[in-house]
Amino acid sequence: MIDLSRLSLNQATVQKLGALDAIDLCVRHDIAAIGLWRDKVAQAGLAATVAAARAAGLHISSLCRGGFFTHADASRRAAAAADNRAAVLEAAALGADALILVAGGLVPGSKDLPLARQMIGDAVADLVPFAEQAGVRLGIEALHPMFCADRCAISRLGEAVDLAAQFPADTVGVVVDTYHVWWDVQLAADIDRAAGRIVSYQLCDWVLPLPQDVLLGRGHLGDGCIDLRAITAMVLGAGYTGFAEVEIFNQEIWDAPADDTAAVVKSRFADLAGAVAAAAPEPER
Amino acid sequence: MIDLSRLSLNQATVQKLGALDAIDLCVRHDIAAIGLWRDKVAQAGLAATVAAARAAGLHISSLCRGGFFTHADASRRAAAAADNRAAVLEAAALGADALILVAGGLVPGSKDLPLARQMIGDAVADLVPFAEQAGVRLGIEALHPMFCADRCAISRLGEAVDLAAQFPADTVGVVVDTYHVWWDVQLAADIDRAAGRIVSYQLCDWVLPLPQDVLLGRGHLGDGCIDLRAITAMVLGAGYTGFAEVEIFNQEIWDAPADDTAAVVKSRFADLAGAVAAAAPEPER
Repeated sequence: MIDLSRLSLNQATVQKLGALDAIDLCVRHDIAAIGLWRDKVAQAGLAATVAAARAAGLHISSLCRGGFFTHADASRRAAAAADNRAAVLEAAALGADALILVAGGLVPGSKDLPLARQMIGDAVADLVPFAEQAGVRLGIEALHPMFCADRCAISRLGEAVDLAAQFPADTVGVVVDTYHVWWDVQLAADIDRAAGRIVSYQLCDWVLPLPQDVLLGRGHLGDGCIDLRAITAMVLGAGYTGFAEVEIFNQEIWDAPADDTAAVVKSRFADLAGAVAAAAPEPER
Repeated sequence: MIDLSRLSLNQATVQKLGALDAIDLCVRHDIAAIGLWRDKVAQAGLAATVAAARAAGLHISSLCRGGFFTHADASRRAAAAADNRAAVLEAAALGADALILVAGGLVPGSKDLPLARQMIGDAVADLVPFAEQAGVRLGIEALHPMFCADRCAISRLGEAVDLAAQFPADTVGVVVDTYHVWWDVQLAADIDRAAGRIVSYQLCDWVLPLPQDVLLGRGHLGDGCIDLRAITAMVLGAGYTGFAEVEIFNQEIWDAPADDTAAVVKSRFADLAGAVAAAAPEPER
């Protein structure tokens, strides 16, 4: 079952708000959880953000993000490792369900994808004990293949599952983001394989045409072509009981009043939850 | 072994030329083969194009393209089937090595990817006997997942191989296009699986940032981040002995003088062939 109580608002959806204003927005709209971004938390102050979320009774469904592990220099890799440990500590302080990892693309100056993927695996392995000790769950996110070169060489959910499976499920899981994985013919099978390891479920829609900056080509749930009902049913079927985070990168939505955006997010999510429930009613007892 | 004798110029690389001018360009630059597009062939006239290519001793490595099978109405599907049969006859008249099939995206008004893929499979099955009789080899092309919604629901080479494998290898094969498949962690395995079924090998590079129209974000070989040497070695390793077709959609390249473009295409291809040979020398006898 999924309903409005499981909605989380990723603050990237209301990009212009600081962390504290985004927390207030969730409270005003009776949204129970939020996904935060490190840069916004840093601007507001980690302690102030923790205090505000706690005072509001707001759950932190994710902290975005660690990762970007692929660097040619050992010194840059060490700096990335240090930054990721800092991210783990922030996630721990916030009590976030997961620290989202966007792995990084090709190593600068190299066309060697296997090298990039090896570097990512090594860096995750290096981070795991620290995360385990901090009680933080890492979420490996597959990004759409159009970001493979410059942002994330983990291009399919199945790759994220394969990587996560090398580590304890308590510490390393995967992120299912509808925008990045919807096209994959193996999606249902890979979500099944991810059972017990889905640490974050993020939603937005794929709208056409893609805008000039393809990072921003995302839409409100229902405005695009992704079968969100089907994917949500798969994620629930894999036993995921966490929050469903709406995360939309879209200049037009960013330019809209945040309260309007929150209202649309809630309404569209309620529609989706209703469609999921109608298609797969709870079994009778 | 790969060398300049195996270079083919896809005429989309010199978009402003008609078919006959593109044929002349290949002759001027001692390029042995060309990939033609149906719209350009229609403009020049099929018979005139056949005659010009024959007179020039130019091989036709591919005809682009059939496909676009996904339609909500039976009447539109029937029209697409008729158009594909016409494309088969054109490919036969041209003696093209393959008719390239771009399958089509989601069925208009539907978010049901499995439905689109089923429709594609059914349409290919319907076309196969006709192609077989005409002696034309169909090439199923996987397009990059960023085109899944609107152009091609076959998003990975492995999907194309799975579909092709349902039919005789003499009639149905796959296209390996570096731009569409380079990011895929399973690429090497899928190229292996495609052995005996690769009917076209197309090359261009992935350049960043992606332009506003993501169809046009392709570059000359070596200008982007694809490991073309590695992929070419995989394709050769799978026993492919056909032409290697350079196909670049890029407004800047289209705006350049066609002779300059042909010269760059040749020079870059020679560099690539040299790198492939250097990395994997012919076995001593």
